[in-house]
Amino acid sequence: MSSQPTLALARFVANSRRDDVPPSVVHEAKRAMLNWVGCAVGASRHETVNRALAALMPFVGPAQATLLGRHERVDILHAALVNGMASHTFDFDDTHLRTVIHPAGPVASAILALAEFAPVTGSDFLHAFVLGVEVECRIGNAVYPSHYDIGWHITGTTGVFGAAAAAGKLLGLSETQLVWALGIAATQAAGLREMFGSMCKPLHPGVAARNGLAAAFLARQDFTSSAVGIEGKRGFANVLATERNFDAITAHLGETWELSENTYKPFACGIVIHPVIDGCIQLRNEHRINPEDVERIDVAVHPLVLELTGKTRPAVGLEGKFSVFHCAAVAIIDGAVGEAQFSDERVIDPRVTALRDRVRAVVDPATHEDAADVRVTLRDGTVLHRRVEHAIGSLARPMRDADLEAKFRGLCAPVLDAAAVDALVRETWRLDSMASAGALAPMTVPRQKA
Amino acid sequence: MSSQPTLALARFVANSRRDDVPPSVVHEAKRAMLNWVGCAVGASRHETVNRALAALMPFVGPAQATLLGRHERVDILHAALVNGMASHTFDFDDTHLRTVIHPAGPVASAILALAEFAPVTGSDFLHAFVLGVEVECRIGNAVYPSHYDIGWHITGTTGVFGAAAAAGKLLGLSETQLVWALGIAATQAAGLREMFGSMCKPLHPGVAARNGLAAAFLARQDFTSSAVGIEGKRGFANVLATERNFDAITAHLGETWELSENTYKPFACGIVIHPVIDGCIQLRNEHRINPEDVERIDVAVHPLVLELTGKTRPAVGLEGKFSVFHCAAVAIIDGAVGEAQFSDERVIDPRVTALRDRVRAVVDPATHEDAADVRVTLRDGTVLHRRVEHAIGSLARPMRDADLEAKFRGLCAPVLDAAAVDALVRETWRLDSMASAGALAPMTVPRQKA
Repeated sequence: MSSQPTLALARFVANSRRDDVPPSVVHEAKRAMLNWVGCAVGASRHETVNRALAALMPFVGPAQATLLGRHERVDILHAALVNGMASHTFDFDDTHLRTVIHPAGPVASAILALAEFAPVTGSDFLHAFVLGVEVECRIGNAVYPSHYDIGWHITGTTGVFGAAAAAGKLLGLSETQLVWALGIAATQAAGLREMFGSMCKPLHPGVAARNGLAAAFLARQDFTSSAVGIEGKRGFANVLATERNFDAITAHLGETWELSENTYKPFACGIVIHPVIDGCIQLRNEHRINPEDVERIDVAVHPLVLELTGKTRPAVGLEGKFSVFHCAAVAIIDGAVGEAQFSDERVIDPRVTALRDRVRAVVDPATHEDAADVRVTLRDGTVLHRRVEHAIGSLARPMRDADLEAKFRGLCAPVLDAAAVDALVRETWRLDSMASAGALAPMTVPRQKA
Repeated sequence: MSSQPTLALARFVANSRRDDVPPSVVHEAKRAMLNWVGCAVGASRHETVNRALAALMPFVGPAQATLLGRHERVDILHAALVNGMASHTFDFDDTHLRTVIHPAGPVASAILALAEFAPVTGSDFLHAFVLGVEVECRIGNAVYPSHYDIGWHITGTTGVFGAAAAAGKLLGLSETQLVWALGIAATQAAGLREMFGSMCKPLHPGVAARNGLAAAFLARQDFTSSAVGIEGKRGFANVLATERNFDAITAHLGETWELSENTYKPFACGIVIHPVIDGCIQLRNEHRINPEDVERIDVAVHPLVLELTGKTRPAVGLEGKFSVFHCAAVAIIDGAVGEAQFSDERVIDPRVTALRDRVRAVVDPATHEDAADVRVTLRDGTVLHRRVEHAIGSLARPMRDADLEAKFRGLCAPVLDAAAVDALVRETWRLDSMASAGALAPMTVPRQKA
């Protein structure tokens, strides 16, 4: 079996029944969907998306699917592309920590567009989503870390398989057609880490979604491919990785679920600063801290924090993401660290900079990566202290459903009114009983032209 | 300069003027175009193309461009995809021997579609074509052979750069935008040799054409990318090759022209059998051989010929391509070895099999790869002999313009009437004086619905 991973995955996808997926995994799928929709809606008017649409709109096909958060309707291939791109633009999407894959983007972008074109129940949709993430992450497990170390953006390269598998399931492909779909995906696997920091990074999951979706349609017409797209001598795993472990693809297939390992970022910045932010927000909320009362904030952190985010005086929004000082200040002031806290205005807001300049950070080699020590000294001499052992959002301390809802509301607020956001939250949680999963997409479109 | 190959190529493309290209290179561009159009038209109704269109037609955009040889009109991105695929379906397209890149497919497919959408003179079109091929082949030179040996289908992986550069030139991109276009191309470079033998092989140049064309449009909207997409630590050359030589990209840029190294296949099969076919056709034509008069045919060949094409009794058309015996027989009977000679009917035609069974092949270690010894013994005892030192189609003995025309006519005959073929030949040769290069495309559409 493990010598034929492409066939094993195709067979698994073809034979999987909805009831094979445990309820906890279905619930995780809904959490992932909520997070993904929020990220895509939140970034729907970002310059990255605007420029891509300015370039591509002259070439789009029939109005088959929704661009999340926008009024344009386009063919499903372009919808998959653009929604996948939007959902990764803030780098705020979900993370499969073992491989650093952002699993939802390629898969959800492909099949939500498909679900608008070829209606499908919410239950079948979630089933396909789970399978797509399973295929994507297992292929990732097989080639990580050598594949990533070489320089591949693994969300793009494995995402195309996930999109193909999920779309192929919804299209009812045969086992042989799924083998071809995975092969057509394999031969389009792409995305370089050199692009990090440019608009091409979010382009990767979009391209993966589009190409995976097209692969499923091609395979449905018996467009042939290699039977060993993953494991062949000149197939994906041998060409794009220096080490590979095919057992990671086939072992316990259908018994364990990679989606259970999915995590969500509570804060719109690099994960290394999350423990500090978490500690600040906890103290703020518990002690109703007034920022003007703060004398100083002292944090003790893992060495990587200052190495990666040691910028003391960020001048533009993006630099704020690389400043533990800015992050601690806005955490105390706002009690949240989303995209709003990284606007160009916010990083030079006098109230923020005044507090930021009173943040001191020291390296504590005894503090592990997921921990931090936060001490807030008030002007009256009171010292508030919080030791965070595992930051919120980690596997050890996952975001609760309510946390994900709050994040979702923050992401959608600039685009949708509160009633629309409420409706989206409600419907996403009942996705497994929706008659048509595709109905979710138009709910993200603002009522008034924005 | 050689440390910044991405910038060097962008600058070269941005600054190149039409008059910088020598007339001989412009003429070679027309030869490449004639060959490319013929291949695309010839395969325009192939099952590979039919299945792809059955899958994708529901999603195509406005009727902006021609599918060569067909009646459907689609958006330019899909036209680039499908025409690129068609042109490589017979594996009969041009070859840059040093890298085994098939240069025309990705480049011509992208910019002929573009030329239908945004009219451009034939002269500017040929200029962009030359530049695209130059970029594509120089990047290939820099990573060949390690890149190919790993398992990359180099026509797909480098083709996307060529398409981006050529389209970018026609769109008037700035130097910076061309850097981004090359980066957007780099991060979509894909195509695995594992796919050889399946429909995914011709898909590669199609995908390269589509993605390169889209990259140029994205860059025109200032969609950003890495500035070092080719040479960056995690850029194309470091991630997709184990050895690379950036001097091959920058040395004599603008002074030498890779298109001068382009070759064209006279026969629709692997290049190893070409010397035998060439010898047979020469003897046939010079001595007006009647196949029924042939007692036996003896060929002495390089060892690879029998290793790769030693099939004595091909049963279906495709197997005929792997039979030096079949090829020698049809060469004597028809005086041509095109796709028509590899139909399922033709390989079991009694007249062909009767002669095929009288072909004997021996290995002659003294015969080099591009040579063959052919001896035809007639029933009357006459022995006709021809030693071929360099097969027609090689760099040493290129196909003449008239040979390319004959090949073109053979490819187009199943699709177009003679008058239409004549017009296409005529217009392709005067492409450099055409007011609108895009006008060439609709000329490939048969007058009557086929």
